[in-house]
Amino acid sequence: MEGAILVSAPASPPSSPSLPPVILTQDELKKIAAYKAVEYVESGMVLGLGTGSTAKHAVDRIGDLLRQGKLHDIVGIPTSKKTHEQALSLGIPLADLDSHPAIDLAIDGADEVDPHLNLVKGRGGSLLREKMVEGACRKFVVIVDESKLVKHLGGSGLAMPVEIVPFCWKFTANRLQNLFQDAGCVAKLRTCGANGEPYVTDNRNYIVDLYFKEDIGDLKAASDAILHLAGVVEHGMFLDMATTVIVAGELGITVKNK
Amino acid sequence: MEGAILVSAPASPPSSPSLPPVILTQDELKKIAAYKAVEYVESGMVLGLGTGSTAKHAVDRIGDLLRQGKLHDIVGIPTSKKTHEQALSLGIPLADLDSHPAIDLAIDGADEVDPHLNLVKGRGGSLLREKMVEGACRKFVVIVDESKLVKHLGGSGLAMPVEIVPFCWKFTANRLQNLFQDAGCVAKLRTCGANGEPYVTDNRNYIVDLYFKEDIGDLKAASDAILHLAGVVEHGMFLDMATTVIVAGELGITVKNK
Repeated sequence: MEGAILVSAPASPPSSPSLPPVILTQDELKKIAAYKAVEYVESGMVLGLGTGSTAKHAVDRIGDLLRQGKLHDIVGIPTSKKTHEQALSLGIPLADLDSHPAIDLAIDGADEVDPHLNLVKGRGGSLLREKMVEGACRKFVVIVDESKLVKHLGGSGLAMPVEIVPFCWKFTANRLQNLFQDAGCVAKLRTCGANGEPYVTDNRNYIVDLYFKEDIGDLKAASDAILHLAGVVEHGMFLDMATTVIVAGELGITVKNK
Repeated sequence: MEGAILVSAPASPPSSPSLPPVILTQDELKKIAAYKAVEYVESGMVLGLGTGSTAKHAVDRIGDLLRQGKLHDIVGIPTSKKTHEQALSLGIPLADLDSHPAIDLAIDGADEVDPHLNLVKGRGGSLLREKMVEGACRKFVVIVDESKLVKHLGGSGLAMPVEIVPFCWKFTANRLQNLFQDAGCVAKLRTCGANGEPYVTDNRNYIVDLYFKEDIGDLKAASDAILHLAGVVEHGMFLDMATTVIVAGELGITVKNK
């Protein structure tokens, strides 16, 4: 998924010699968005630290600024075991929601962003802890490259993850699929490894990925319907949670505020 | 909680010599309700098998009738590991929701029953599997002794259980308590053993027990609010699920139908 994107060079006066176009990879765009988001961080803040390839750049950057003495008195609340390890290795002081139930700012990536700043998250598998941390934030800055923008959630054709208990997972997967029959939903257990074993979350649950052919319509109704199924722990729709979305794209950075 | 209750003897003609009053324990009342419920069972049925001291009598009775040849071709779907073991030892053929997603009849106890046949369940710790199985039933018969009848859910002053993920459980417990601040809610982690270690469910989650001083009001709104908290797996309110409640009490058996 790391495609190369052609990016125009910064505008230059018409009289100057034209510069060659600059090629930025998707990963470089993610980094640009991440660095921009870290500009929101101030010393003394309690910070939610996201998970995934884009959030990783933000955590790295926070580590750099701490080392350089440009930030101090930061407390990080990681959203996964992986981010916990990354932040530890960077020397970022860490705590958890039990000791810090109010968070100033969280920075995290997303798999899809719709025009109302609703998100799909969790393709990285950390949706539950992300939702707990990011639901406890005063400000939630989302960082994406422009490939993540969609007209409606599910519109990328890629997975919308749902964390479920392992007990009778087929039963729950079928119920999820039936719930969105009209949207041409297909539910698939997420697997890993050569043997196709179930992927297990940090909370020792499974993930069912939902794929939609059509728009699922009312997102709040969809969320309620999913949460009402006994066996579902959480879903990857983050509705009305992002306060800012930073999009890095071919034409530069766009900042969208709620 | 196994109190002795004074029960009148069966009505006899006024002219006959008066019989001495019969003392039935709470456990005997539970057994009476359970045996009555098993009258609903027919050969060939797929049966949801409940968990707890009252449901145990029903499972025992089903085992007896199978052994006596009065029932045959039963498939049991247990709602807990404990019931699974009990049913296995009785020779009841077992399956699960994955292979039998449609259940004819489930029989289970409850901790509270309100006048609309809404229930609190899960003091035994099996609320999630019970809700999955009993949500998949055509008919759900609840068996209680009359001490379980309440004017409104939470009204017994005893626990309303919520199954949560262990990750940052204090944070989730506080959020649950704050949700019902107006009802004087106190949230307590369920513990077990001499060292007060967290009680762990069959799904390896924790249980937070909610205690209310006042009526929590709109149950559907309460259910939605609880399920919307990331970190909550399921709660013990079973709303609009029971089709029949069998109550064994001082004056005999009462059958309430939805």
